[in-house]
Amino acid sequence: MPPQRATLLQVAQRAGVSRSTASFVLAGRHLDMRISEDARQRVLRAAQELDYRPNLMARSLRTKVTRTIALVSDTLASDPYAGRAINGSLAAAVAHGHLLFIGETEGDPVVEARLIDDFLDRQVDAFVYASMFTRHVRLPKQLKGRPVVLLNCFTGGTRPAQHQIVPDELAAGASAAATLLEAGHNDGIHLVGTASEHVFAGRERLAGIREELQRGGTRLAGTVECEWWPDSAYEAVSRALADGLAPRALICLNDRIALGTYQALREAGRVIPDDVSVISFDDSELAAWLRPQLTSISLPHYELGRQAVEKLLGPPSEPAVLRLPMPVRRRASVAKRAVR
Amino acid sequence: MPPQRATLLQVAQRAGVSRSTASFVLAGRHLDMRISEDARQRVLRAAQELDYRPNLMARSLRTKVTRTIALVSDTLASDPYAGRAINGSLAAAVAHGHLLFIGETEGDPVVEARLIDDFLDRQVDAFVYASMFTRHVRLPKQLKGRPVVLLNCFTGGTRPAQHQIVPDELAAGASAAATLLEAGHNDGIHLVGTASEHVFAGRERLAGIREELQRGGTRLAGTVECEWWPDSAYEAVSRALADGLAPRALICLNDRIALGTYQALREAGRVIPDDVSVISFDDSELAAWLRPQLTSISLPHYELGRQAVEKLLGPPSEPAVLRLPMPVRRRASVAKRAVR
Repeated sequence: MPPQRATLLQVAQRAGVSRSTASFVLAGRHLDMRISEDARQRVLRAAQELDYRPNLMARSLRTKVTRTIALVSDTLASDPYAGRAINGSLAAAVAHGHLLFIGETEGDPVVEARLIDDFLDRQVDAFVYASMFTRHVRLPKQLKGRPVVLLNCFTGGTRPAQHQIVPDELAAGASAAATLLEAGHNDGIHLVGTASEHVFAGRERLAGIREELQRGGTRLAGTVECEWWPDSAYEAVSRALADGLAPRALICLNDRIALGTYQALREAGRVIPDDVSVISFDDSELAAWLRPQLTSISLPHYELGRQAVEKLLGPPSEPAVLRLPMPVRRRASVAKRAVR
Repeated sequence: MPPQRATLLQVAQRAGVSRSTASFVLAGRHLDMRISEDARQRVLRAAQELDYRPNLMARSLRTKVTRTIALVSDTLASDPYAGRAINGSLAAAVAHGHLLFIGETEGDPVVEARLIDDFLDRQVDAFVYASMFTRHVRLPKQLKGRPVVLLNCFTGGTRPAQHQIVPDELAAGASAAATLLEAGHNDGIHLVGTASEHVFAGRERLAGIREELQRGGTRLAGTVECEWWPDSAYEAVSRALADGLAPRALICLNDRIALGTYQALREAGRVIPDDVSVISFDDSELAAWLRPQLTSISLPHYELGRQAVEKLLGPPSEPAVLRLPMPVRRRASVAKRAVR
């Protein structure tokens, strides 16, 4: 059987004081309640000896604060990398003395509504509403008016009602282009990967790339269309090379595309970075494992999670969309090119 | 401001009945309390109109059951793959109408003790105590005598006090060897990776490999010692090949080692699987992305998590160590070899 929890009454009896005296001592109110130092010491000792812990749930009923938060996502824990947002959320929750519930909905609105009800039944203090991929969402109506921060998603509109933490994909696109420009690349730059208009990461990365190349007086020489997976990228790049493509630099829309691109280039006998420079996005662990190691713009999953909970539990501030910087991890896949 | 929660009293007032009548109706006790069908209908309608939900925390104080469980691990969410155990745990918890707290200790016993106290303060019903790597643990003393299942760790001893769910690494080692034997490999089989005695996965995988090869009338021809990372494997295998190693098959102790091994073999001009077959463990997403796709013995993270919570919340059974099967994912890296 689980050890029985000591009650306040047991502490009081052991200390030889009334239940309310024990309660005042343990709440730190001995001074204003004029409790003797001797009685106070007896209560503290008894509490320690009995391993007494206040019943937080009973206290929660009085104060309406449970010091718990809930992280509701579509499928955050499933993803090998986005899962790190859970880590970051945990770290910030613990730093603020809160515990974290997690729940996943797999994007099903019925599951979501029930899950949120379940959390509300347990009177969680606040919510992180999260998405695996950065995207536009509608806040579930049960969450309206409650303390909520959006993690890796946003509701749009000019005046957000909640903090919304997203990666700065536009600046990331610009960073990728700037990295190539700084290395002397000003032509023969191709994109690998299809940037559909309704996928936030693709749309913003491409817009950032285009803006920065334009600032540098150049533009993309072309695009190798493919899905964001190694096999699709391998086939598309292999075909393009066979058809005569001779790129000087490839910007891959994520590391998985970069893996397929590496495989295609190698089979075609093109050497990275001597013949072709490659740069990518995400900085998943794969990036450092490729040969040569891949330069990639990092998706800061941990920091996204940490900041979301920090905004939720830290000092109040005006709700805003917070775009977190995506740092460049410079490795060995981009070569300097002599400026003509 | 968050919407105010409707109280039982408000439901009763709206229905024009007493608080206790409303309470009996909502608890389904209208028959034994002889409440009229008319009053019952009014109460149910009022509850629906006010979106009334019973205060689960108040009920928990009476029943001592919160329908919450806590998953305490060293760093489960940090790992790209082990994180899937959280998914599996979530799925089983929800199937049993429970919600899941998670907490991480980074292996610090002081953090762990405080975290468990925090969960106990919130009166969680049961615990999953988990490890990122399969290993021997001592159960924290606060958890003794409580409902606990161990996930990916074990306490040892002949009569476990809790269910302990671990992957069957011994059988996995045997499966890897059997896969090579079935393909006609009976010599020139080398291990890649150092199997230290105190790392469960390495020790058991190697023991399983040895037993199965012996059953097949052969043995390992040698070992290329390296750490379980791509760069270490790449260097060790490159050096071994340069020194004249000419393996027919390589058993890599995990997929990261296999990645480094692929890179070394390719640079040395050895073709997988024509010159060398490669088989590995973990079946991380990497395995399907390599060219040729890697045959790997799967670590069933999701299933480990699911089974742990199932044992915790499902029908009671005698505590035991449960070794979950690790299925072989057959792909293209093992070639048939003519039996001599």
